[in-house]
Amino acid sequence: MTSDLITIGDEILIGQIVDTNSAWMANFLEENGIMVRQITSVSDTKDHIISSLTASLAEVDIVFLTGGLGPTNDDITKKTLSDFFGDKLILDDSVLKHILAFFKERGREANDLTKAQALVPSKCKIIKNKFGTAPAMWFEHDGKIIVSMPGVPSEMRQIMKDALLLIKEQKVLGEIIHKTIFLRGIVESHLAEMISSWENSLPKDIKLAYLPSRSCLKLRFTARGADRLGLTHLIEQNIDSLKEIVGSYYSDYQTHLDEEMLVMLLKKKGKSFSTAESCTGGNIAKLTTSIAGSSSCFKGSLIAYSEDIKINVLNVDSDIIKEFGVVSEQVVSAMAVESRKMFGSDYSISTSGIAGPTGATNELPVGTICYAIATPSGVHAFTKQYNSDRVTNVSRVSLDSIRYLNSILENLPSLD
Amino acid sequence: MTSDLITIGDEILIGQIVDTNSAWMANFLEENGIMVRQITSVSDTKDHIISSLTASLAEVDIVFLTGGLGPTNDDITKKTLSDFFGDKLILDDSVLKHILAFFKERGREANDLTKAQALVPSKCKIIKNKFGTAPAMWFEHDGKIIVSMPGVPSEMRQIMKDALLLIKEQKVLGEIIHKTIFLRGIVESHLAEMISSWENSLPKDIKLAYLPSRSCLKLRFTARGADRLGLTHLIEQNIDSLKEIVGSYYSDYQTHLDEEMLVMLLKKKGKSFSTAESCTGGNIAKLTTSIAGSSSCFKGSLIAYSEDIKINVLNVDSDIIKEFGVVSEQVVSAMAVESRKMFGSDYSISTSGIAGPTGATNELPVGTICYAIATPSGVHAFTKQYNSDRVTNVSRVSLDSIRYLNSILENLPSLD
Repeated sequence: MTSDLITIGDEILIGQIVDTNSAWMANFLEENGIMVRQITSVSDTKDHIISSLTASLAEVDIVFLTGGLGPTNDDITKKTLSDFFGDKLILDDSVLKHILAFFKERGREANDLTKAQALVPSKCKIIKNKFGTAPAMWFEHDGKIIVSMPGVPSEMRQIMKDALLLIKEQKVLGEIIHKTIFLRGIVESHLAEMISSWENSLPKDIKLAYLPSRSCLKLRFTARGADRLGLTHLIEQNIDSLKEIVGSYYSDYQTHLDEEMLVMLLKKKGKSFSTAESCTGGNIAKLTTSIAGSSSCFKGSLIAYSEDIKINVLNVDSDIIKEFGVVSEQVVSAMAVESRKMFGSDYSISTSGIAGPTGATNELPVGTICYAIATPSGVHAFTKQYNSDRVTNVSRVSLDSIRYLNSILENLPSLD
Repeated sequence: MTSDLITIGDEILIGQIVDTNSAWMANFLEENGIMVRQITSVSDTKDHIISSLTASLAEVDIVFLTGGLGPTNDDITKKTLSDFFGDKLILDDSVLKHILAFFKERGREANDLTKAQALVPSKCKIIKNKFGTAPAMWFEHDGKIIVSMPGVPSEMRQIMKDALLLIKEQKVLGEIIHKTIFLRGIVESHLAEMISSWENSLPKDIKLAYLPSRSCLKLRFTARGADRLGLTHLIEQNIDSLKEIVGSYYSDYQTHLDEEMLVMLLKKKGKSFSTAESCTGGNIAKLTTSIAGSSSCFKGSLIAYSEDIKINVLNVDSDIIKEFGVVSEQVVSAMAVESRKMFGSDYSISTSGIAGPTGATNELPVGTICYAIATPSGVHAFTKQYNSDRVTNVSRVSLDSIRYLNSILENLPSLD
């Protein structure tokens, strides 16, 4: 079973929004045994919608369209599909009822434009949009299925789940299994060389992809077939034989997220953690606490944005700030040490810097950031120059500091 | 001047990664007067790459391809393009030198697979990849331009900038102007009705798009032509006439980000802000400090993840926690009040809840989150049930609490 995704809307083509819908849909479909062949983003124009739909229908079993179903002039998907299938729009009473109830619940009156959303092509089946007013439409044409949905993520997700149930009533879906493993300390080209004979003898049902990232190298296994259990077993077998070849490059911490590795390490070593953040403004705390189960090792943070708070709440000696400046290795060292005391933690990260776009001083350019890691046996402090925008600079120094702490933790003995 | 973007790689088609490259590229091209007609994601297979490239070359002036240039077996873009143009691969000495220097700088040896990245089609022009080893390739074919780049974001961005310079040497680019305005307190269908006669009389050079989001309604103006200044003036004129129709629905705070609106409001009203966060783990502080200039109104935060820190650092009365439970309106009220004291701020937000996926108690299901807003005249506390994953729950309560504070601030008199 194969599918194409077509997203309709100029906002993607001018880069105003990132198309997160397609990633969610692709993942959802793959997990349910429907392969995604192609993802296409097209403009809100009739010709373009029709040409891409026609091209997709020639290649796949199902086409999922999102977007262009709003009540306003720039949204033309419904009319275009109706014309494409030689159909006409009729009023659907159940949709109209839903729209009126939807507005009433929110204390608003539905106007004519909104009510017109109850006009739908006569030949389509309606999939109810529980979280919005524009109904989703299911068409069948020459043995193919076409599903048109709104682009609002929460509405699309609910509809995709209902559409999958309808598909399963009609079709038997094949199985696709993905499994990703994580290696550390080796680059892509060296790994490829090391495992080339193993890779060349992989069963033909298994496809391998190398996915390098900043902190690790991912290897993704994909197997397709009818027998889920058999495919899973086949992948596991091949991972076992790979592990023997790569040895210690196979990471005990099977994640590409540095913050997840931090939480895993802290838990394994029985240690706790806190932060004292200035320029990162809580980003390190936020990354750490985004990991489920972090509450067992994360104690807390002080976001000390102003000098006053660094001195009076965090207890940094004001003389150190006067002598070395607030962005200095001396100050971040003191911040990290005080954070350990304040929160009673084993380890602490601190930051202070000029995230940008303004704030440069005579001595320090924008992007200068100091960070420190305090441990039970001492403090490590660093100064780095980051040359990107504010948000990226904050993100980079957050990950750099977490990675450094991870490298310290890796060398500790484990609890068990 | 029109272009298509083609991203090559199975990781997008299985939803393993979100395609952020295309959004960046589309935005970059639009700002430089190159219209993006279509974005297509295809698999790492020769037939698929060639069919999508052929389709794009029939429609546009330039095709930008990303991905599939790594050193390993699954990356086939270079060989495919070489075959497509009837070319052969030759060794490029300058690329080889760059690769060897790149590895040497990192204290590594380049192996044969890496060195093979210096093999390039003989007819292409090389664009140097300053941040990586795979060179970008520039082809010219029947009056069209084809640029093939690695998919690593930092590498792609640098190469796009260099490619634009090369394009500008050959072509005169048209102008595209976008301007987005923000309205609040009105839904899409009502606005469309209100401004329909204004919209129908818009000059044909201007295109309008409605972009509803959770906290506001965006209207995007797009104008294309040769005269940048004239187009800008035309848009400004039409925005002025629109403002007269929509009156107070036009927001003084021209942003779709609630946290940016918070910083704008605090600065305008001359007030300061702090947080005391439990389940949001620093996310509200991180959102606020992601806004440039927030240091003038954001004082700091205490991330009080454990009960111990809430009592001993934040100074919440332990009896309140015992009596009402740590996830309660009473506790978040105390947290918000103590945060105002600790940081000397005018306003404060606090949170405590069960973000998930585990942590439910006998009384409270996963997703129960309390938040409070402390003001100079009192505290407002709320309990809400969020039903999504951990990260989404945290994101939602963060924005809900910021929006509530914004509504309070909007009613204050301004400094000026």
